[in-house]
Amino acid sequence: MTSTSKTPLLDRVRVPADLRGLRPDQLRQVADELRTETIDAVSVTGGHLGAGLGVVELTVALHYVFETPADRLIWDVGHQCYPHKILTGRRDRIRTLRQGGGLSGFTKRTESVYDPFGAGHSSTSISAGLGMAVARDLKGGSNHVVCVIGDGAMSAGMAYEAMNNAGSTDSKLIVVLNDNDMSIAPPVGAMSAYLSRLISSKPYLSLRHLAKDIAEQLPRPLRDAARKAEEYARGLVTGGTLFEELGFYYVGPIDGHNLDHLLPVLQNVRDAEDAKPVLVHVVTRKGHGYPPAEASADKLHAVARFDVITGTQTKAKSNAPTYTRVFADALIREAEADERVVAINAAMPSGTGLDLFARRFPDRCFDVGIAEQHAVTFAAGLATEGFKPFCAIYSTFLQRAYDQVVHDVVLQHLPVRFALDRAGLVGADGATHAGSFDVAYLGCLPDIVLMAAADEEDLMHMVATQAAIDDRASALRYPRGEGVGMSLPERGTVLPLGKGRIVQEGTKVAILSYGARLEEARRAAQDLAARGLSTTVADARFAKPLDEDLVRRLALNHEVLITIEEGSVGGFGSFVLHHLATAGLLDHGLKVRPMVLPDRFLDHDSPARQYETAGLSARHIVATALTALGMETAAARA
Amino acid sequence: MTSTSKTPLLDRVRVPADLRGLRPDQLRQVADELRTETIDAVSVTGGHLGAGLGVVELTVALHYVFETPADRLIWDVGHQCYPHKILTGRRDRIRTLRQGGGLSGFTKRTESVYDPFGAGHSSTSISAGLGMAVARDLKGGSNHVVCVIGDGAMSAGMAYEAMNNAGSTDSKLIVVLNDNDMSIAPPVGAMSAYLSRLISSKPYLSLRHLAKDIAEQLPRPLRDAARKAEEYARGLVTGGTLFEELGFYYVGPIDGHNLDHLLPVLQNVRDAEDAKPVLVHVVTRKGHGYPPAEASADKLHAVARFDVITGTQTKAKSNAPTYTRVFADALIREAEADERVVAINAAMPSGTGLDLFARRFPDRCFDVGIAEQHAVTFAAGLATEGFKPFCAIYSTFLQRAYDQVVHDVVLQHLPVRFALDRAGLVGADGATHAGSFDVAYLGCLPDIVLMAAADEEDLMHMVATQAAIDDRASALRYPRGEGVGMSLPERGTVLPLGKGRIVQEGTKVAILSYGARLEEARRAAQDLAARGLSTTVADARFAKPLDEDLVRRLALNHEVLITIEEGSVGGFGSFVLHHLATAGLLDHGLKVRPMVLPDRFLDHDSPARQYETAGLSARHIVATALTALGMETAAARA
Repeated sequence: MTSTSKTPLLDRVRVPADLRGLRPDQLRQVADELRTETIDAVSVTGGHLGAGLGVVELTVALHYVFETPADRLIWDVGHQCYPHKILTGRRDRIRTLRQGGGLSGFTKRTESVYDPFGAGHSSTSISAGLGMAVARDLKGGSNHVVCVIGDGAMSAGMAYEAMNNAGSTDSKLIVVLNDNDMSIAPPVGAMSAYLSRLISSKPYLSLRHLAKDIAEQLPRPLRDAARKAEEYARGLVTGGTLFEELGFYYVGPIDGHNLDHLLPVLQNVRDAEDAKPVLVHVVTRKGHGYPPAEASADKLHAVARFDVITGTQTKAKSNAPTYTRVFADALIREAEADERVVAINAAMPSGTGLDLFARRFPDRCFDVGIAEQHAVTFAAGLATEGFKPFCAIYSTFLQRAYDQVVHDVVLQHLPVRFALDRAGLVGADGATHAGSFDVAYLGCLPDIVLMAAADEEDLMHMVATQAAIDDRASALRYPRGEGVGMSLPERGTVLPLGKGRIVQEGTKVAILSYGARLEEARRAAQDLAARGLSTTVADARFAKPLDEDLVRRLALNHEVLITIEEGSVGGFGSFVLHHLATAGLLDHGLKVRPMVLPDRFLDHDSPARQYETAGLSARHIVATALTALGMETAAARA
Repeated sequence: MTSTSKTPLLDRVRVPADLRGLRPDQLRQVADELRTETIDAVSVTGGHLGAGLGVVELTVALHYVFETPADRLIWDVGHQCYPHKILTGRRDRIRTLRQGGGLSGFTKRTESVYDPFGAGHSSTSISAGLGMAVARDLKGGSNHVVCVIGDGAMSAGMAYEAMNNAGSTDSKLIVVLNDNDMSIAPPVGAMSAYLSRLISSKPYLSLRHLAKDIAEQLPRPLRDAARKAEEYARGLVTGGTLFEELGFYYVGPIDGHNLDHLLPVLQNVRDAEDAKPVLVHVVTRKGHGYPPAEASADKLHAVARFDVITGTQTKAKSNAPTYTRVFADALIREAEADERVVAINAAMPSGTGLDLFARRFPDRCFDVGIAEQHAVTFAAGLATEGFKPFCAIYSTFLQRAYDQVVHDVVLQHLPVRFALDRAGLVGADGATHAGSFDVAYLGCLPDIVLMAAADEEDLMHMVATQAAIDDRASALRYPRGEGVGMSLPERGTVLPLGKGRIVQEGTKVAILSYGARLEEARRAAQDLAARGLSTTVADARFAKPLDEDLVRRLALNHEVLITIEEGSVGGFGSFVLHHLATAGLLDHGLKVRPMVLPDRFLDHDSPARQYETAGLSARHIVATALTALGMETAAARA
């Protein structure tokens, strides 16, 4: 059958050792087949496409030159790792990518020994790699450690911290800078401009260099200042100086799609004996080799299932706007009414909806790059001068700026507005991207206002409310995906601070929902009513300040009080319990049941199935109520 | 009386406008008097001395050249701001520094309009300053924004993120790099080495340069590569290139103690009209001008009260070792027994006690600089290779690496051991340094082990326990200051996971303590016993996994259950309540009272008074118990 295979060479490669059994002149064909296979797989599963296509040759070259898995290969972020997965024993499952029970869309330690470090968030690879390199040296080992990091990821401070440390450590570490001048959006910042100058000012290394000079020069620092000066004078003004000043050997730029260049450079770098870090500057094109990707503005960064010939994606028809879109529209309304409203994002203009805001108010929208720490304190600086900054960062990524939220914003009572998209479980991106913890990690902070939107209309009101809260920090969380599809007002209305709302009145069971589980709470109430249990449903709207009157009324007038939220322990439910306890409302008995995310990380799946796994669906609410009432039935357990 | 004053000129300066009324040739004397006054004040209060002494001339020059407070002056970290406070209307209170009710030891917005941004943690100033600069431009203003940041603070990624953003933004921003080659400890990392080369390779700017060339050249980028190459060839190989590549004009190095150099450079920078960021590289000596500080290894970074003539500090006699010391000794014991034990800190070798560890195991101790994010993921990399990394970071500073804890460590079940010194309230450093939130922000994470030491013996056991926990992350918190002064074992013993201990048995009231409030709990129990209320005291030891058996027994066998901890809501008390609720243990009534830090930031004071203010002393426990029992008395409220 192999004679009819479209991937005859790739078929012989189950693991990288098989690849290393091939001749160098066969690798071009392997790369072509690997690209075909990657496109075909993602056309079935959807997922990240452009980044993987850009590193097909690099993936082949790295596994050919290095002895993976003994040599450690770390992919920063990991969304470019599909070709790597195909080459490392996972081709048979590659069409399960990002599906429930299937392969992760990122590297994952539990998935393969070829994934020495898991990822999902950006800019962690050099730190992890340095740890592995130092560990090797402590153990007296001889394996290599290779980190592949994109130019976009280089805007994050963490990458700099790691380089700064690596550059003064006597450990050999190989950093491959995969420069495609593109992360999700076009990159921003001075480092990006520097890299562009670097590329434009120097020709690609010639073959002569590759074969001889590099091998000779690499291990030897250029000790002679005069000689160095001469090199500068020869036109290498921007020859990687910045990296050299940070203690790295710099090699490049190299055409990352040319295996005849990649292989000798990587071999030379591998064989260099100096205990110094090396930065190999590789230039690639995101989406390379697949015309529909090359022609697309975002290089098909992330796609739905698509037609391989045309690149046309099969997008599900949507009945409602996404929360992201509603947020963006609501913020534009507020900005039209108040010129002090400004918006900040960290390399996520389209993900946060701020691309729309930027189109309307180009001077009032700031994309600071993958730099969440800076984003938050930059917003704090704007707030000190009387502006109304909205800092739109996904729940999971705000973890990257936690101290800035605490120390620079909340502690100073500066009115920075945090808009936390992707709160709760997020589906195919899995555990690394889940927004599970923000209610807990923000709710412990004094004097911050916390809101969660139950539906898109409330999201509009809450954006308006944030615009109005000008004496302290506030955060608003809302889920990934589409709303419930309701008619929306032209502009949101400011909500009373710390006040929830009763959605329906009952007498026996009370369900107090925080955020977008409200619909499930409603369904549960119907089910309970059908069982003769009169049920109140309330939407807390605020986790902080808590609506203590509402909590008291629910506690006093019901036998069972259930709280439910799309978040971890330590969040809304904990604040309700804390208030009930300190107010003495538990002294005489209350069947109170906080429903939160389970105390484990949940793998990728559809959000609906994830919440089912998490035990936060309507039927789980019903079961919780029945069990609390001693009415546990087989149905309740179903 | 002024004729007898030791500070006749300074006496005429209440606010910077007064300073600006003096002649330039009077400023040398003002600086000398300011130094005298600073030394005298800190000799009375204790506090940060060396850093302030190093910037006396810079402080005078900045307030002389810039129109503060209309021009924004931001001191990074803020511990060098005492001379600034003296010049900005706070001289009359300067001898209340760091005392309860007195001036903060850092900049603070609520304290003065001359403090446009508060600090305490490092490396935030450029981000905040860029926000202010962009705000100015949006408003069409013309004020200047000046950030003063130390070379140590430049190792943090946040500073790089801000420079990367500023360097590509068309806003004028002035960054003064205060390079004293010293933060708290000698600095580490490639950036530090780079700055040293920069200084050693270039003479200080000459007066001729200052007067003419700089003024001419500053606003004009060096567009001609040939000319640039020539400059390199002239020997300016390391002439600030790194900063220039990041989009800054670089000026320097300048002698930061020479007002004749500082003033014209700052004036030129002020008057430059380009909308570009400028970095002024100023070289200072920490402790300058005070021989005892200059002679000291740490340049008298932070001191107790001292004798002005000799510099001898008045240290209170201590009866017990500090928790820091006990931790260090315990870790050394573990490292002696297991060569896989390694230790990491972020620019805090002495603060964490790891200086002792490094002396014993120099190859197994890593100071990565002010780079908490990198520290944590570097530790994660070490853990993947089978090492047992202890990452010693203060509770407040681990906030700076929250996502690394979540995404790189806990999510991957990597056994990184976090040692959180300074947990709870920390005294004179105040709100910025309080370790209030770690139980909440770590406790929401799945599968992490959380411990708190009630005394120094338990601290030893817990370090041993962390060394043994090799399948997941663990964190151990302990307070600032001295232990209770007990005899200690040679080495700690591994504790049973998730098991607390009963300290004394009673029947009516149960106090479940997590951490170092145990002594207060004991005292409260004595008081309650004297009132006829038999009281159980238990030490939870673990917040996660929670000792559910212990919680159940306490709940079932007592009328009142009080939890107490040195942390915020959302932490230990919340986990206890969550378990009680889900287990149905509240269904029939339990007078449960969680005692946590109040929901506000607490200013600096002695720790004892802070806990009194927080309502977490023995008498508050007694009052809580009595109130719960309906026995509230005047005594209980006292």
